[in-house]
Amino acid sequence: MSPEFSNLTETNEKLDVITDLCKEMQDKTGIKLLWGTAKCFDHPRYMHGAGTSPSADVFAYTAAQIKKAVEATVKLGGTGYVFWGGREGYETLLNTNMGLELDNMARLMHMVVDYARSIGYTGDFYIEPKPKEPTKHQYDFDVATVVGFLRKYGLDKDFKMNVEANHATLAQHTFQHELRVARENGVFGSIDANQGDTLLGWDTDQFPTNVYDTALCMYEVLKAGGFVNGGLNFDAKARRGSFQPDDIFLSYIAGMDAFALGLRIAYKMIEDGRIDKFVEDRYASWTTGIGADIIAGKATIQDLEKYALEKGEVVSSLSSGRQEYLETVLNDIMFSL
Amino acid sequence: MSPEFSNLTETNEKLDVITDLCKEMQDKTGIKLLWGTAKCFDHPRYMHGAGTSPSADVFAYTAAQIKKAVEATVKLGGTGYVFWGGREGYETLLNTNMGLELDNMARLMHMVVDYARSIGYTGDFYIEPKPKEPTKHQYDFDVATVVGFLRKYGLDKDFKMNVEANHATLAQHTFQHELRVARENGVFGSIDANQGDTLLGWDTDQFPTNVYDTALCMYEVLKAGGFVNGGLNFDAKARRGSFQPDDIFLSYIAGMDAFALGLRIAYKMIEDGRIDKFVEDRYASWTTGIGADIIAGKATIQDLEKYALEKGEVVSSLSSGRQEYLETVLNDIMFSL
Amino acid sequence: MSPEFSNLTETNEKLDVITDLCKEMQDKTGIKLLWGTAKCFDHPRYMHGAGTSPSADVFAYTAAQIKKAVEATVKLGGTGYVFWGGREGYETLLNTNMGLELDNMARLMHMVVDYARSIGYTGDFYIEPKPKEPTKHQYDFDVATVVGFLRKYGLDKDFKMNVEANHATLAQHTFQHELRVARENGVFGSIDANQGDTLLGWDTDQFPTNVYDTALCMYEVLKAGGFVNGGLNFDAKARRGSFQPDDIFLSYIAGMDAFALGLRIAYKMIEDGRIDKFVEDRYASWTTGIGADIIAGKATIQDLEKYALEKGEVVSSLSSGRQEYLETVLNDIMFSL
Amino acid sequence: MSPEFSNLTETNEKLDVITDLCKEMQDKTGIKLLWGTAKCFDHPRYMHGAGTSPSADVFAYTAAQIKKAVEATVKLGGTGYVFWGGREGYETLLNTNMGLELDNMARLMHMVVDYARSIGYTGDFYIEPKPKEPTKHQYDFDVATVVGFLRKYGLDKDFKMNVEANHATLAQHTFQHELRVARENGVFGSIDANQGDTLLGWDTDQFPTNVYDTALCMYEVLKAGGFVNGGLNFDAKARRGSFQPDDIFLSYIAGMDAFALGLRIAYKMIEDGRIDKFVEDRYASWTTGIGADIIAGKATIQDLEKYALEKGEVVSSLSSGRQEYLETVLNDIMFSL
Repeated sequence: MSPEFSNLTETNEKLDVITDLCKEMQDKTGIKLLWGTAKCFDHPRYMHGAGTSPSADVFAYTAAQIKKAVEATVKLGGTGYVFWGGREGYETLLNTNMGLELDNMARLMHMVVDYARSIGYTGDFYIEPKPKEPTKHQYDFDVATVVGFLRKYGLDKDFKMNVEANHATLAQHTFQHELRVARENGVFGSIDANQGDTLLGWDTDQFPTNVYDTALCMYEVLKAGGFVNGGLNFDAKARRGSFQPDDIFLSYIAGMDAFALGLRIAYKMIEDGRIDKFVEDRYASWTTGIGADIIAGKATIQDLEKYALEKGEVVSSLSSGRQEYLETVLNDIMFSL
Repeated sequence: MSPEFSNLTETNEKLDVITDLCKEMQDKTGIKLLWGTAKCFDHPRYMHGAGTSPSADVFAYTAAQIKKAVEATVKLGGTGYVFWGGREGYETLLNTNMGLELDNMARLMHMVVDYARSIGYTGDFYIEPKPKEPTKHQYDFDVATVVGFLRKYGLDKDFKMNVEANHATLAQHTFQHELRVARENGVFGSIDANQGDTLLGWDTDQFPTNVYDTALCMYEVLKAGGFVNGGLNFDAKARRGSFQPDDIFLSYIAGMDAFALGLRIAYKMIEDGRIDKFVEDRYASWTTGIGADIIAGKATIQDLEKYALEKGEVVSSLSSGRQEYLETVLNDIMFSL
Repeated sequence: MSPEFSNLTETNEKLDVITDLCKEMQDKTGIKLLWGTAKCFDHPRYMHGAGTSPSADVFAYTAAQIKKAVEATVKLGGTGYVFWGGREGYETLLNTNMGLELDNMARLMHMVVDYARSIGYTGDFYIEPKPKEPTKHQYDFDVATVVGFLRKYGLDKDFKMNVEANHATLAQHTFQHELRVARENGVFGSIDANQGDTLLGWDTDQFPTNVYDTALCMYEVLKAGGFVNGGLNFDAKARRGSFQPDDIFLSYIAGMDAFALGLRIAYKMIEDGRIDKFVEDRYASWTTGIGADIIAGKATIQDLEKYALEKGEVVSSLSSGRQEYLETVLNDIMFSL
Repeated sequence: MSPEFSNLTETNEKLDVITDLCKEMQDKTGIKLLWGTAKCFDHPRYMHGAGTSPSADVFAYTAAQIKKAVEATVKLGGTGYVFWGGREGYETLLNTNMGLELDNMARLMHMVVDYARSIGYTGDFYIEPKPKEPTKHQYDFDVATVVGFLRKYGLDKDFKMNVEANHATLAQHTFQHELRVARENGVFGSIDANQGDTLLGWDTDQFPTNVYDTALCMYEVLKAGGFVNGGLNFDAKARRGSFQPDDIFLSYIAGMDAFALGLRIAYKMIEDGRIDKFVEDRYASWTTGIGADIIAGKATIQDLEKYALEKGEVVSSLSSGRQEYLETVLNDIMFSL
């Protein structure tokens, strides 16, 4: 929002001017702030990391910068605050103390949470997983890795995920997978909407136009109960060759239409019910008998052995996974809106 | 060790015969058992998973099979028991209840641990992370994912990692990375020694001959304090074209020589001290002043802001990461043994 | 069609029995043969290659086997004969004479073409590009590589491409890219219809259900003038978890519906005209003035320098590539059939 | 060497000043020019390509710029001229006339060759294959693709390959593979020496330190007869974190030492003879009997069928490919210099 000036004092003062203006404009227009963040990855001081820098001075600077960004977020009524760890990782293990770096990252996050809560912030904190780029390895590799980190350091009550489609595929996961992992762990938060190219190995941040992806994304969002503090943010840019001014409009229209269509399909998937019913039936054995006993914690391994020995071969308890059929159902729903 | 027969009772009886024989041979030769495991992925009953099967009957069968395998492991004095989750994952999210499947997996692991401890097993349990293949997505994606899973379900005291080189690269990590993550989380256990081909996308399980990899592997092992209950297991096979009987010998020699050389290099890396000293110096700011205060929990974010505002720009607190130099040091050590 | 027996004489005799039966059935039903092929990759004799084997005896055997397969293809009225080079590649360059192997492959192809033409075969020969798997590197890496090979050895008049979707993505190309390269080089022939998973690194051979892919495939097919001797062959298998007999039907329906929808969309893309018109306009400068002169070979580099020096900066001659808009047009066409 | 100014006339004039200075310095120091090139990818005018631009005006500008660069190369006594096609490709096939673009690229190359020869240039022209980045797809994908292109357009007599290690792995080939393909096709020219990270998907251009890669590279170079007009050019940059001035020295030393060691190992590989002898023996069947007849063109497919029918099963003609043994031999040579 405001560039860095010669020192932090001046940078902060200039930021105040801009956020004052933003507040005024927000009040006038009713436009709200989705989330705030601090850019702790661009400046050379962050070349070795910010919260994970080998330099304690850089860590202190990071903390100060984020403190200010949190204050700005609160001032502007943001309901989210995002950490994107673009430099929180390593280039080579030959020079890296991974354990200390991760401990420090957690220390920083605790400080930020404590401070933000102390000044009345009630929104969510987000981590935006990304496996690499610009670094060789980024600590926030994917949702599962981040969830593990949050639990280790007792941060899982305050943080949720800001899932980016292109970061998902860079980590060799589908976008839906990352959303599902977040949902199943109760940490789904917000979305950085874009699309990558799975045949390329870097973050292309394309405007999303693949309706399969937007439909399955919105399906997970609906299943997660919809957005609470989060929302849909286009972290996308028009291709270099799309350089005319109207390409910006055409690109946003492309992305928004793809998500609107995706939402309608997701809604219809649920209304249609075939897919959800299939899944429910597939796991029916867990609602009665030995399945229910296992879930209730009533069955010991000895009980299960006895059951298995008596039961004999159980392959007949399986039914088809029906992947091809389910993909046809999805096509059927998509192309008959 | 022993194939499946027409029913579990018979399968178990035949297994007893074989393990009796093994015990006899072990006593005679002094050869010891590194770890035991159960093959819960090959038989059609496991096509949709074992501990994560949609069928409660398959889950029960799995529990029974693992119970027997744990008993065999204890009988033969194994110091490890490995879970390899080759079918614990999904083919398509369209038919999958991921949350239930993972909860069930944890239920199974708790049962197995409780039972094994009850019959006197004091060794480690291992999970062997693998991101995919045969499934589209395997829940034990990589070390970080598994560590997060273990913490979520309170299994982190009993389980350690059995890290396989080729599984590491399939997850887009270096072998050293996976070992480092395990080490930093105190869950380094054992190693499945092999190598993959990073230009191929499947598990090639080649005999390891790349000395960079074996050296950096043994460096992590030494830093982790060496093997306790674990060891080096060749999960490798000679290439299809290496079909003559003596290829087996040549292949094991290839792998063992590469690891022996790797160990000598790793030892010399530590003895040489240049790399370790570089890392120590790089993080020196955390041992005094503001760095020490942060680690001791004495510095609030307000303190850090005050410090940063007074300090001004901190980029000069950084020194070079020296990746190229450190790689030269490694070459120097490797090629002057 | 018929397994290998103890020797080639017997194998050939048994094959005759089966092809007699096939011919009878074809005559009765009117079903025609799309193409024939020989399985020169499965038997251990082909472990080091068939036409590229280090053993001249294996080469001779390969030639004999293919000769018989060509005869069978002619007998059954096939309009295509496919080479799939699953073992024509290498595992390691340390043991490989790449130049000799490729020369030999060309020798084999010339022999086969000459023989087939001599017995009246008028159909196409196909190569099915694949970059790897089972080998580390397959010589028929992708369409461009194969086209280069064919030109080098004077085989480009007789051979066309049998493009497989999943092989395309294994080579890091889109399916459409491979079809386009074939079309632009006049060697589009036939299609092995399936889909892979771009987040996995092996040949999954899934039934195709992604309608973007089938639409863009059929667009290229229509632009290439449709099928002549080729056709659409499902080189796909239901997932392991889709094991019930009706899954075969559901899978073929899934694939056929996806291609039928793709064909309708492709037809509408052309009828709609927006995309083709955009491309035509984009390259309009090549139809007049300096562009036409360049194409006609009338402009020397000196002429162009003179033109450029006089013209000054030419960036204004460019217009947007409009990727996002064109993707929206595609969605518009797809979802308003 | 010299930036672009407001128009081509001025740009060329300024370039003359610089090349005059270079010539003077070359004469003084004896330093020679390896190759010249033109930067036809950075300026916005090249956003859609240079020789493959949809705009004929951009094509003309490209031709003029390259003409000047060729003149400068000749003036400075360069023995090579490189085309790097960083923008010669496409972003999306939806807006691309691939056939026209490739024809135009060939037109440009012919013009450049004709002109250069007319002013006395006797060196090589190089194409530097790269599969992608910055574009989605670059036409010069890999060595095999480029060789095919050159043959199609009759350019194979004048062009050779400038092989870059990191571009090789981006195309899913080993560096050695690309060099081998170039060597076997008689188009090995020069080398852009660096290394990538096979677990990352972009061009990292790291200084080369992996001695396996440098050894196998120099092995191919020696087998190709060494450099004629080409040489070893470091297309590498120190990591961002290696920002101190002496890192430049340390990085060049790292790379040069790795190549010097690689050359010594390559020389020893050949002197040692085990690997070359193994390959020679492996293909011995092609020097006598049926093998020699096939190569001499004396054996028809009918002859081979007769031979195969009489011979029976030929699997016993195969011997092991010995990959593991050969890798051990390589390690033995590397670590006992």
